[in-house]
Amino acid sequence: MRVTLICIGTELLNGKVNTNSAYIGEKLSTIGIDLSSVVTVGDNMPDMENAFRCAFEDNDVVLTTGGLGPTFDDITREAVSNVLGRKLVLNSEALSFVTEFFARRGIEMPANNKRQGQIIDGARIIPNKYGTAPGQIIDIEIERSTGKKKMVAAALLPGPPREMRQMFDDSVFPYLRQFEHGIKKSFTLHIFGIGESQVDEKIRSLADAEKKFDAGVVDFTILVHQMIVDIKASVRGKDEMLVDEMLHNIKTEFLTLLGNDVYGENNQTLESVVGELLLKNKKTLSVAESCTGGLLAGRVTAVAGSSLYFRQGAVVYSNESKIKMINVPDDIIKQHGAVSEETARAMAEGMRKIALTDYALSVTGIAGPGGGTQEKPAGLVYIGICGPDGTEVSKYNFGGTRFDIRERALNQSLDMLRRKLLKLH
Amino acid sequence: MRVTLICIGTELLNGKVNTNSAYIGEKLSTIGIDLSSVVTVGDNMPDMENAFRCAFEDNDVVLTTGGLGPTFDDITREAVSNVLGRKLVLNSEALSFVTEFFARRGIEMPANNKRQGQIIDGARIIPNKYGTAPGQIIDIEIERSTGKKKMVAAALLPGPPREMRQMFDDSVFPYLRQFEHGIKKSFTLHIFGIGESQVDEKIRSLADAEKKFDAGVVDFTILVHQMIVDIKASVRGKDEMLVDEMLHNIKTEFLTLLGNDVYGENNQTLESVVGELLLKNKKTLSVAESCTGGLLAGRVTAVAGSSLYFRQGAVVYSNESKIKMINVPDDIIKQHGAVSEETARAMAEGMRKIALTDYALSVTGIAGPGGGTQEKPAGLVYIGICGPDGTEVSKYNFGGTRFDIRERALNQSLDMLRRKLLKLH
Repeated sequence: MRVTLICIGTELLNGKVNTNSAYIGEKLSTIGIDLSSVVTVGDNMPDMENAFRCAFEDNDVVLTTGGLGPTFDDITREAVSNVLGRKLVLNSEALSFVTEFFARRGIEMPANNKRQGQIIDGARIIPNKYGTAPGQIIDIEIERSTGKKKMVAAALLPGPPREMRQMFDDSVFPYLRQFEHGIKKSFTLHIFGIGESQVDEKIRSLADAEKKFDAGVVDFTILVHQMIVDIKASVRGKDEMLVDEMLHNIKTEFLTLLGNDVYGENNQTLESVVGELLLKNKKTLSVAESCTGGLLAGRVTAVAGSSLYFRQGAVVYSNESKIKMINVPDDIIKQHGAVSEETARAMAEGMRKIALTDYALSVTGIAGPGGGTQEKPAGLVYIGICGPDGTEVSKYNFGGTRFDIRERALNQSLDMLRRKLLKLH
Repeated sequence: MRVTLICIGTELLNGKVNTNSAYIGEKLSTIGIDLSSVVTVGDNMPDMENAFRCAFEDNDVVLTTGGLGPTFDDITREAVSNVLGRKLVLNSEALSFVTEFFARRGIEMPANNKRQGQIIDGARIIPNKYGTAPGQIIDIEIERSTGKKKMVAAALLPGPPREMRQMFDDSVFPYLRQFEHGIKKSFTLHIFGIGESQVDEKIRSLADAEKKFDAGVVDFTILVHQMIVDIKASVRGKDEMLVDEMLHNIKTEFLTLLGNDVYGENNQTLESVVGELLLKNKKTLSVAESCTGGLLAGRVTAVAGSSLYFRQGAVVYSNESKIKMINVPDDIIKQHGAVSEETARAMAEGMRKIALTDYALSVTGIAGPGGGTQEKPAGLVYIGICGPDGTEVSKYNFGGTRFDIRERALNQSLDMLRRKLLKLH
C-alpha cells in the first residue's frame, strides 16, 4: 500500500520547519508503512491541485495537513474537492463541532468560521478536540490518467501540530492500521556524559555485526542535541516475538557497553528520571539559579506530579538577591565574584538550609554573549550540589549561544543530580 | 523562475525532521524566490526518478539534497543522470576532493568512496569543506513532455546539514542570485490578546484590497502559536523603493487596525518588548511563580542584558515556600487555597516588597493534568501584577496540555506587564 503526505502551507516553503511530516512518518513506520513521499506546496490553488492530482495517480492513500482554517487562504477543502470531482457540502455535524467550540468558550462565532463546516460530499468527519477545524476522511473511486478505475482514500487534517496529532492518532492511524503488513519496533536510548564519537566507537562492534542482517532488518541512528546523545535502534519483521527478542538483545548489549551514561529511554527525560529517583528514595529538592534564570526549576516542574519532591527555587539574578534570599555571604561574592566555585557552593548550601530539602542544586555562570572576560569567558558555569553528604561543585566551559549555554547547563545540572542519586541505591 | 527542492532520504519519511528544506526556503525567500514545492522521497530509484522527472517538467531549477554518500543506497547521482539522459563520468577534480579529505585526516580511503568522484557529464563541482561528498551543478537543455525544449539547472548537494549549508551558501545561492528578478521583503507582526479569527476579520478589508494587485505582489499569512497570532506580509517587486513604501503602508494600516494588540515585529518577543519598556522607563522587575515553576523568570532572562532590570524570582511550588520565601499569609492560603485571586495578590505584593522592585508579577494555577477539581480545573491560572499603582489580578482558563497551559500563562503574564508598562508613556 502506498501512502503519501501533502503538507499545505507557504510558510513551510520559506523557512518554517515541518514537524508534521516527521510525526506522521514515525507513527506509520511503527506499523510497517513507509510514506512513499512527502510533498509540500504553498497555499495556492494550481500547485495544490497539481500535487493532489499526482498523488492520487500512484498512491492508495493521500494524507494532507494544513489549509483547513477559517481564513481566505485556507483552501485545502476546495482543492481536494476539485481534484476528486466531488462537491463541497455544508455538513451540520461538522458545523456543530465548530459552533460548539466557540460556545464552550463563550465567544460568538465569527462568520468566516462557517466555511469549516463544509465537507467533501461522502466524507466522514474527524473531530478536532483542540481547535475549530474538523478533519475529514473519504473513500472514493477515481479514474487515473491510464483510464483505470481505483479505490483510494484521502484524509484531510489541520496544520497546527497539536490538533493534527490528536486527530491523526484517534482517527487516521486506526484507519490505516487495518492495512498493516508487518511490524517495525524501535527504542531510543538517551545518553549523557560522553560525546557522539565516543558513543559511536563504543557501539561500533555491535553496529557492524548488525549490518550482516538483511538490509532493512536492523537500523541504527545517532542524534546529538545539547550534549545529549540519542541512539535509535529499529527492527523490522513479520513475527512480533522475533522482533521483540532481537530488540531486547540489542538493548541489553547497548546497556552493557554504555553503562550509567545511559540515563533513560524513549519518552524519559533527564528531569523525569531525576524525579523518579527522588520519589523512589523519598528525597526532596530545591534549586538556586543565576545564569539559567529559573529554567532549571522549570525543567524539574515540567514533570507532572513534581510537587511531590520539588519544594522551591530561587532565581538570584542580582548580587543582592543572592545575599538576601539565600544567605550567600557578601564577602564571598566580593572576594571571588558571583561566578565562582565559592559562590556556587554557598548558593547550594544556603538554598538547602532555607528550603529544608535533602538536596539543593545551584547554577551560576556567564550565559553571554556579553558579560564575559578573558579570565571568566561566556560559557563558564559552576554547578553545585548540596546533600546529606556535603557539597560538591564542578566547573564547566560550555560552547554555543546564550540559549545553548543555558540548555547545556540545565542538562549538566540534572545529570549531576542523577549520578548523585544513583549512588543511593 | 520556479525553483523546487527534492530531499532524498528514507529517514526523512519515517521520523527525522527535515531542516534542510527550512534552511533553503528561508535563504531563497530573501532574494524573492519562493520554492514552488519541497518533495521528499526515499533512497529508491523509481520514486527518485519520478520525482526528478516531474520536477523538471514545471521548474527552471531543481535543487536536491542527500544521497551523495559513498554507500550502496546513495544513488542521487545516478537518478539525476538517468532523468537528464547524461552519463556519469569519473572526474579527477571531484575525486581529488575525496582523496584529499582522507589524506588530511591520515586515514586510508575506503574503496567505495571512489564513487563520490563521479559527476554528471558537463557539471561543475561544488567543493565540500566539511565532508567527503562533492556537490555538482549543471545547466542543461531538456525536452519536456510537451516536446518543448528548455534550459534548466540542477544542483546536487549532500544531506548532512553542516555540509549542505556551506555548499549552498558558497555556490548555489550566488548562482541563483544572478536570476534574482526583483526583490521580496516582508515583516511579521506579533499579536496578543485577540484570536486568529478576530485578527482575520479586522484585517480582511485590507487583505481583500491587496488581492486586487497582481497575483504574487502582496502575500499575507496568519499563524497561531500558544495564543500568539503572527501576521506575515510580503511584498515583491522590481523597485526597492516602491516595495519599501508599500510595505510601510501595509504595516501602518495593520497597526491602525490592530492597535496595542500588536506587541512587536520580526525578531521581537514578548520578553524582549517587556525588557525594552522596563529599560526605557528605568523600572525593575521580580517574579513569584508557582505553576510556571521558574519558566517566567526563564523567559525574562532569555534576553541578553536582562540583569539591567530583572532582579530576582521565587519559585514557590510548595505552600510553605509561599509563606516563608515571599510572606504570603498562612491564613490566605488556608481560606482561599494556593490557587486563588487572594494568593496571587499576596504573592505579587510579597515579592515586590522583598525584592524592592518597581513591579512584581505572580502566577499561580493548576498546570495539570492532575490536581484539578470541578471548581478549580486544570488550566485555571491567576496572574497578579503589583506596581506603584497597586495590585491587579486576572483569572484565566487555559486549554491544552500541561506544557500548553504553562506556555500560555507565560505569554499572558508578559502581555499583562507589557500593557501596564505601555500606560506609563
